[in-house]
Amino acid sequence: MSESAFNLSRRMAGLRPSTIREILKVTAQPEVISFAGGLPAPELFPVAEVKAASDLVLTNNGAAALQYSESEGYRPLREWIATEVGLRGFKASADDILVTNGSQQGLDLMGKLFLNPGDVVLTENPTYLAAIQAFQTFEAKFVPVPTDTDGLIPEALPELIRLHKPKFLYTIPNFQNPTGLTLSAPRRAALARIAAEHGLTILEDDPYGKLRYRGVEIPPVKHWDTAGRVIYASTFSKTIAPGLRIGWMVLPASLFHPTLILKQASDLHTSSFDQRVAHIFLTQNNQTIHLEKIRRAYGERYEILDATLRTEMPAGFTWTKPEGGMFLWVTGPEKLDAMELLQRAIVQKVAFVPGRDFFPADAGKNYFRLNYSNSTPERIREGVRRLAALCR
Amino acid sequence: MSESAFNLSRRMAGLRPSTIREILKVTAQPEVISFAGGLPAPELFPVAEVKAASDLVLTNNGAAALQYSESEGYRPLREWIATEVGLRGFKASADDILVTNGSQQGLDLMGKLFLNPGDVVLTENPTYLAAIQAFQTFEAKFVPVPTDTDGLIPEALPELIRLHKPKFLYTIPNFQNPTGLTLSAPRRAALARIAAEHGLTILEDDPYGKLRYRGVEIPPVKHWDTAGRVIYASTFSKTIAPGLRIGWMVLPASLFHPTLILKQASDLHTSSFDQRVAHIFLTQNNQTIHLEKIRRAYGERYEILDATLRTEMPAGFTWTKPEGGMFLWVTGPEKLDAMELLQRAIVQKVAFVPGRDFFPADAGKNYFRLNYSNSTPERIREGVRRLAALCR
Repeated sequence: MSESAFNLSRRMAGLRPSTIREILKVTAQPEVISFAGGLPAPELFPVAEVKAASDLVLTNNGAAALQYSESEGYRPLREWIATEVGLRGFKASADDILVTNGSQQGLDLMGKLFLNPGDVVLTENPTYLAAIQAFQTFEAKFVPVPTDTDGLIPEALPELIRLHKPKFLYTIPNFQNPTGLTLSAPRRAALARIAAEHGLTILEDDPYGKLRYRGVEIPPVKHWDTAGRVIYASTFSKTIAPGLRIGWMVLPASLFHPTLILKQASDLHTSSFDQRVAHIFLTQNNQTIHLEKIRRAYGERYEILDATLRTEMPAGFTWTKPEGGMFLWVTGPEKLDAMELLQRAIVQKVAFVPGRDFFPADAGKNYFRLNYSNSTPERIREGVRRLAALCR
Repeated sequence: MSESAFNLSRRMAGLRPSTIREILKVTAQPEVISFAGGLPAPELFPVAEVKAASDLVLTNNGAAALQYSESEGYRPLREWIATEVGLRGFKASADDILVTNGSQQGLDLMGKLFLNPGDVVLTENPTYLAAIQAFQTFEAKFVPVPTDTDGLIPEALPELIRLHKPKFLYTIPNFQNPTGLTLSAPRRAALARIAAEHGLTILEDDPYGKLRYRGVEIPPVKHWDTAGRVIYASTFSKTIAPGLRIGWMVLPASLFHPTLILKQASDLHTSSFDQRVAHIFLTQNNQTIHLEKIRRAYGERYEILDATLRTEMPAGFTWTKPEGGMFLWVTGPEKLDAMELLQRAIVQKVAFVPGRDFFPADAGKNYFRLNYSNSTPERIREGVRRLAALCR
């Protein structure tokens, strides 16, 4: 069967193959020290607590947990999320919350909701590569917003809005993927104000916000959103476990029903079982203690990565100083070709993700992303030594 | 916030609101006897076996079950499915199988893969309403294929293909939703032959095939597909439990990678936990015995529904004689308005789904669908008595 036997949609021509997928296959070998991927530390997964929750769900509500359920999501879980959202700095009711199949599905739904072919999405530069993939499915065009170490620069927006009439701005304000950088509080306030003034819709993606290991928590952009222009998305992937695929969105009232119809057409609903298990886990266990364990481990791993990079890396390499999350971002000398470096690194059994795929438009080849959440301190040290030797 | 504050995609204008959603809200009250919905019988869910499987998964492979996993699906589950597919009458390897978030997601992925705005999808008439919704998301146009009690009429296809150049034909050959009808074996063979001759792609949706309670099993259309034109989709929603949201597709080789990229962009992967639980359930329990229990119950419920309809319904009403599945389809007198009947039925605490939403184009108002899998024999008898009284 040749591919041409099928007449595929136009969108398939625009989809970029993911380099990261191929890298991850290589790095699955246990002898490879991988700074690639974006995996949480599995040794911190609350396996025993999830097991207790599963038992409870199936003992007390087995039939309901295995039956079709509401497309909106499991009501008690949505109520828990509404309370959590209050602690994060803005008000929402359970009625505003849609449970998604991981926060990735939220991106897909927003693409469906907003994007006609050729529509512009504003993004940080670089940005999360699977968001690029999700919006590419709807034939979006990407326009990067100028960015510095405090995140995107709000003052650049009015001109971009005027020129490109974007459908929305996609932003990850906390410990951004891939840079690890955080949008400052004044910029969040400015962003919300500009959105209100210019009728800009903001998709605020916050998967990592609960993973702050130093510095002071900053409320979400949504906190400053008096005009109802911000859609807020988050997930349990980093705080419970990604394998359950439970994400969620807080939607402005007028967008809830249209998005719900799209969710229903996409997969009817998210696993009834996993939603109930997550709800029991959340209500039966102290989340502060659980999250503190993750934060401490990731903070320690970051410190070791940063310290070893400082000792080992040659001149000409700089990297970001995240206050949370799972990634940092390395800028090499102009002449560095991170793809070529990766090929040599894999021979030495160490891996990372070259920066190229995170840029919506073409960009320099001298960047790469390092993940530190999924390696032990010893492996981080050894991995950096191997990598640095190749950079000298 | 008014809806006009947001500039939604063009596709949102074409989406039909689902009447069934609103009906299902009313019928959630326990005193309503509901022939609406399409719920499997929860008392037949293998709750204890799923509990044992969950325990085993979390005891032996807890971290892996809670971690991100391959977009393709859990390999041992795909291998189990490959064997199952062999028993259904065609050959496939685990490499051809993509696990989806329920078979509904398969419809979404096929819409993404094939459909540009205005592209034509051929369907049975009536057809599954959530398939209409899924393809409408991609601004499809629907062209119905003439249908009789043996299913769609293959001889009608060449002319429809010539006129409309459809991207694919969507068909449910076994115990179709909503009619309960089955495509005969000679027609399946003819369908595959016509597809090969005319370069027609077929999306064969088979959620109910294992629920045959009388008559002789017929191999899938895919069995006759020597040209590789048939995409086959199925699910564990009716054979294990829908709450786990695990469906699957068998894809022609050249479509696998493009579909995989779309799955990844849609939600990364289906729940690692649920996939492993399903796999352990499938391998640790005798599926023949388990399915036999479901088949016997549904067969008995169908017989009672049919017999009570024969006793109670006035002249002018006819209905289909399914050999499996969960639905039958009633045709009332020309002058019947099933929506109006439903309003009166709800007052009498009995519900069904009016036929209108199952027709891709406008059609008669004198049809309705009855589901019998989710009611006990006593409730079926009482429900039909209430309904028949309103029809007289």
